[in-house]
Amino acid sequence: MSKLTDLPKRILIGRALRSDRLGETLLPKRVALPVFASDPLSSVAYAPGEVLLVLSIAGVSAYQYSPWIAAAVVVLMFTVVASYRQNVHAYPSGGGDYEVANTNLGPRAGLTVASALLVDYVLTVAVSISSGVENLGSAVHFVIEHKVLSAVAIILLLTLMNLRGVRESGKLFAIPTYVFVFSVFTMIAWGAFKGLALDDTMRAPTAEFDIEPEQQGLAGLAMVFLLLRAFSSGCAALTGVEAISNGVPAFRKPKSRNAATTLLLMGLLAVTMFCGIIGLAMASNVRMAENPAQDLTLDGQPVGPDYVQDPVISQVAAAVFGEQSFFFVLLAAATALVLFLAANTAYNGFPLLGSILAQDRYLPRQLHTRGDRLAFSNGIVLLAGAAMLLVWVYDADSTKLIQLYIVGVFVSFTLSQTGMVRHWNRHLKTERDQAARRRMIRSRAINAFGAFFTGLVLVVVLVTKFTHGAWVALLGMVIFYVTMSAIRRHYDRVSEEIAAPDEPTDDTVRPSRVHSIVLVSKVHRPTLRALAYAKLMRSDRLEALSIDVDPVETAALKVEWDRRGINIPLKILHSPYREITRPIVEYVRSLRRESPRDAVSVIIPEYVVGHWWEHVLHNQSALRLKGRLLFTPGVMVTSVPYQLQSSELAGKRARRRQDWNAPGSVRRGPVSEQTKEPSGRT
Amino acid sequence: MSKLTDLPKRILIGRALRSDRLGETLLPKRVALPVFASDPLSSVAYAPGEVLLVLSIAGVSAYQYSPWIAAAVVVLMFTVVASYRQNVHAYPSGGGDYEVANTNLGPRAGLTVASALLVDYVLTVAVSISSGVENLGSAVHFVIEHKVLSAVAIILLLTLMNLRGVRESGKLFAIPTYVFVFSVFTMIAWGAFKGLALDDTMRAPTAEFDIEPEQQGLAGLAMVFLLLRAFSSGCAALTGVEAISNGVPAFRKPKSRNAATTLLLMGLLAVTMFCGIIGLAMASNVRMAENPAQDLTLDGQPVGPDYVQDPVISQVAAAVFGEQSFFFVLLAAATALVLFLAANTAYNGFPLLGSILAQDRYLPRQLHTRGDRLAFSNGIVLLAGAAMLLVWVYDADSTKLIQLYIVGVFVSFTLSQTGMVRHWNRHLKTERDQAARRRMIRSRAINAFGAFFTGLVLVVVLVTKFTHGAWVALLGMVIFYVTMSAIRRHYDRVSEEIAAPDEPTDDTVRPSRVHSIVLVSKVHRPTLRALAYAKLMRSDRLEALSIDVDPVETAALKVEWDRRGINIPLKILHSPYREITRPIVEYVRSLRRESPRDAVSVIIPEYVVGHWWEHVLHNQSALRLKGRLLFTPGVMVTSVPYQLQSSELAGKRARRRQDWNAPGSVRRGPVSEQTKEPSGRT
Repeated sequence: MSKLTDLPKRILIGRALRSDRLGETLLPKRVALPVFASDPLSSVAYAPGEVLLVLSIAGVSAYQYSPWIAAAVVVLMFTVVASYRQNVHAYPSGGGDYEVANTNLGPRAGLTVASALLVDYVLTVAVSISSGVENLGSAVHFVIEHKVLSAVAIILLLTLMNLRGVRESGKLFAIPTYVFVFSVFTMIAWGAFKGLALDDTMRAPTAEFDIEPEQQGLAGLAMVFLLLRAFSSGCAALTGVEAISNGVPAFRKPKSRNAATTLLLMGLLAVTMFCGIIGLAMASNVRMAENPAQDLTLDGQPVGPDYVQDPVISQVAAAVFGEQSFFFVLLAAATALVLFLAANTAYNGFPLLGSILAQDRYLPRQLHTRGDRLAFSNGIVLLAGAAMLLVWVYDADSTKLIQLYIVGVFVSFTLSQTGMVRHWNRHLKTERDQAARRRMIRSRAINAFGAFFTGLVLVVVLVTKFTHGAWVALLGMVIFYVTMSAIRRHYDRVSEEIAAPDEPTDDTVRPSRVHSIVLVSKVHRPTLRALAYAKLMRSDRLEALSIDVDPVETAALKVEWDRRGINIPLKILHSPYREITRPIVEYVRSLRRESPRDAVSVIIPEYVVGHWWEHVLHNQSALRLKGRLLFTPGVMVTSVPYQLQSSELAGKRARRRQDWNAPGSVRRGPVSEQTKEPSGRT
Repeated sequence: MSKLTDLPKRILIGRALRSDRLGETLLPKRVALPVFASDPLSSVAYAPGEVLLVLSIAGVSAYQYSPWIAAAVVVLMFTVVASYRQNVHAYPSGGGDYEVANTNLGPRAGLTVASALLVDYVLTVAVSISSGVENLGSAVHFVIEHKVLSAVAIILLLTLMNLRGVRESGKLFAIPTYVFVFSVFTMIAWGAFKGLALDDTMRAPTAEFDIEPEQQGLAGLAMVFLLLRAFSSGCAALTGVEAISNGVPAFRKPKSRNAATTLLLMGLLAVTMFCGIIGLAMASNVRMAENPAQDLTLDGQPVGPDYVQDPVISQVAAAVFGEQSFFFVLLAAATALVLFLAANTAYNGFPLLGSILAQDRYLPRQLHTRGDRLAFSNGIVLLAGAAMLLVWVYDADSTKLIQLYIVGVFVSFTLSQTGMVRHWNRHLKTERDQAARRRMIRSRAINAFGAFFTGLVLVVVLVTKFTHGAWVALLGMVIFYVTMSAIRRHYDRVSEEIAAPDEPTDDTVRPSRVHSIVLVSKVHRPTLRALAYAKLMRSDRLEALSIDVDPVETAALKVEWDRRGINIPLKILHSPYREITRPIVEYVRSLRRESPRDAVSVIIPEYVVGHWWEHVLHNQSALRLKGRLLFTPGVMVTSVPYQLQSSELAGKRARRRQDWNAPGSVRRGPVSEQTKEPSGRT
């Protein structure tokens, strides 16, 4: 556009884009990182707090276990990152977990992963927006006082943006993500410096509070169970890690290597921020409780239901930078923004996955082709509707929503990694090159450990979270699974029914002649055009047909027909009940009865108008007639359009609509690139 | 059906119907009366009460004027009946007031009448249902306690019945209407006998009450104004009188004479009942007030807001028969039922008038043809929605709604009668036969007096009711008027644009050749059928076109094409962005650019499926493509349907839908009959 907006673009994207068209933008690593990592990076805004919340059930003394839980999350994170680095190399086509599971474990596993991911996208929106609102609320109190309303409003805003087809651009993601990462690192560094070098005591706003343990003196198995629950909550930090494996085609070359490097970078940033925040929270004595109203006490008195528990990241920021200081507000804003971008990720991922599922005929086929605004819109509305429902039911409370969140992620992690093990096994059977075999065996080991570890976490999550809400997520997965299976079965049945036989059958006997009928109501331009076109087609018999619903008009039509000397016979059907559809359908049927081997071609002059309300005023009879004729065997129906002046505008509108950008275009990468890459798909 | 339901039918309709099809039922007078008169007859259930209500403003002493007001209503009724007897003879085609005004006073007057009648239909529903609920409520208290809810529920029930296409049958109307008339006459006779012969004092339930006058000591002009207002309210008895003039074609022959006789009979019944009820109300000391809570007093104390004022007809019934006696309940039920039937009248009249307006292109054209369920449905939903809105806004209070009601009726009365005067003037210019001239001069005198009197009443109604609600009705009329004018202007503009020129112009230059394109995605039965049909058409060039959205599928298509030796060239368009519509439209455009005088025929194989949800899974690309191609000049679009097995069911459903009966069919009479009659339409 202008030079002003061009400058940051040049800095960030490196060069002016040669064209706005999709497919000429490949992402360098520094742009790919924010595009794909806003989801996992943003989860450090809530994951550390969730760990503390669960531990608080056993009282403040349980906080001592938080470093161990953080360590477990770090190990898990590196395991997952290492595993996905293998995926990225083995499946550079961007199919992601669905493709891996589908190819190696069969369609049922694939469909399970797909269902899990779809549920996951819904929850990404619900959790990220809720958490974003909570973070924003620590700086702007109005937001936290109208939490559900604010969350729904932001979901609506994102939905509208995506429905309008706002292009997902690297710039949009880059600035807030880097500001967020920079702020968090500054906070950790400054906090560490204050704590270690200055020996300054940092006090979180909640440092004065005590926690009333919900369950006194937990020990043995109960304590282990609580620690596992805390670990499960911490695993929320891993959501979205798989995004890069879907986006390999969008990377600059060498695609797989760049994607793998970005993945590692993202893992490093995420764990550093996660551990840093936990550490600062311990150092500044943050106090969080599951039910703050009852369990948080000040001088022995519960804080009461009006108390608003700020997220751990903003409490830490208050301790390090001072409440409502510049950095505090900046961090709150950046955190909220990154969380909203993470939600937007789902708006891009949902239709992307939809298009892959549509290709495998689990979803309506039109989702597969690009630029089908209507189809994408339906997906977006479904996503937004489900997310809003969750936000409303769970009061936009990120802590409650997280209970549902992690199941889907670990279902797909586990199945994907198991699939990778199979993948290597298959390749090892044929590979003879020793160096390659060694690499494969190493990869297999990584994936096997990944599968084992993520599977274990899945079991832990299911056991510790099932009654807390994970069953809702499972129910959602079952609904998606059943629906998609039904759609696939339908397509398979139809495909079988319409398969072309090798031997000619009754059905494929070719009609010998064609009898064309032009429908006429008056002699006007559309009619004349239809008659001219009908003559061009040189059918075996051609006649014009008019329905007599008004004797005066019919008489006028006959007179005009003769006056103009139109050399096509005009047949008039009497319609005593002023019906139009029935006499025509019956006439066509009678023609077919007389000569069953003839085809009948019905030619309908049609007006093309510009506005929907004009459409209501025209063509309604034609539309209904076409609908009925389609059920009549041996008939083809031809529309000869006549463009009214007002249609020009509508034509332009339609072309503009066609230039609409489907969400997910940037992260999907250009198709041409994609199809050139060798694909692991069978 | 069974013998049981056959018996009353035989009694009432006289003979078993030869066929269920429309057009073989012509109504004898004894059936026509209840069909057309349920609306005016039912209005005696509320009109007398409204007179008393208005008079009560000046205190109970003003009740003495009620016989004079009744007399004025009687004179008006006979004036209107006499006038419409002229209409019925002059315009036997059933066009009614709209046709008379349109033909004689021009399209603006016609459209004004049409707008007034449309508003009137809405109010017929609102007033009749509200009054029906009030009458039912005098016997069943639950109904009056949930008045708005009950009214809305009954409107919904009527709407559903009419949407489903329940045939309006004479039987349905005859029994309740005759029971109602019989009960009212019995009540009047028994009341008169009790009062005069037995000298028994009848006491209405409200006879003990006093009325606190809202305006003390009214005299002079103020009193005249009040009397005029009371008269205006009494005119509610005349609503619906014009219905017969719309229904002449439905009568047995001699149609006009039978219609005129029925009209007279209806007038006699209505005024007798009206006067009888007023008389009994006076005799039994019924006390009604506009604001009963404040103005009705018992021993000097207001009755308070919990008091429910029963309709005058049920108070009289209580006085004559005793409260909750058999006849009391029978009358309440019959009154409510007749009022609901009166509302149903509007459901029949609204689409009927709509179809006439559609013929004159004031409404979408498809309303004109019969059996267009969708179009009728829209009309019915509009009617019901507007009526429900009124019922809701005015608390289902018939007294408030009647303030809106009478304007529309008298607008159409006045314009129709004025038109008739013009009609006779025109005919008198040419008529030479002295006997005929005398008859015409007599008719003209009647119509002139009718026009004068109804015009006067219209002024009275406007002056006395404007601020009480008549402005709402006028606003509704303006909205209908403006909308219908706009539709007509649109049709006129289009009609001008598409008028066929006598000299060939650029537009009518005939294309010289046709280039056919069959769209192909896979080789299956639908494709093979489309190819076979395309060959039949013998176009100048024929090719198959496939869009390459998936290289693997495209390769498979090519192989299959060659294997089957299909002797039509297959063109593949590369689509890097997996679009379908754009490459095809661009290809068609390029063909047109190369040879602008060629027409392009695009042939699309289409699946025909049985369920809407199946439809979502198929043809979406085809649908969108067709939409876009229609905007491309020089193109015709052919659908070659392939009926899947599931479509058989849908075909049957569609045929069933076609057999649906449009509301208003009985009262409109058969079309064939209608067109045989000489019509006054110019």
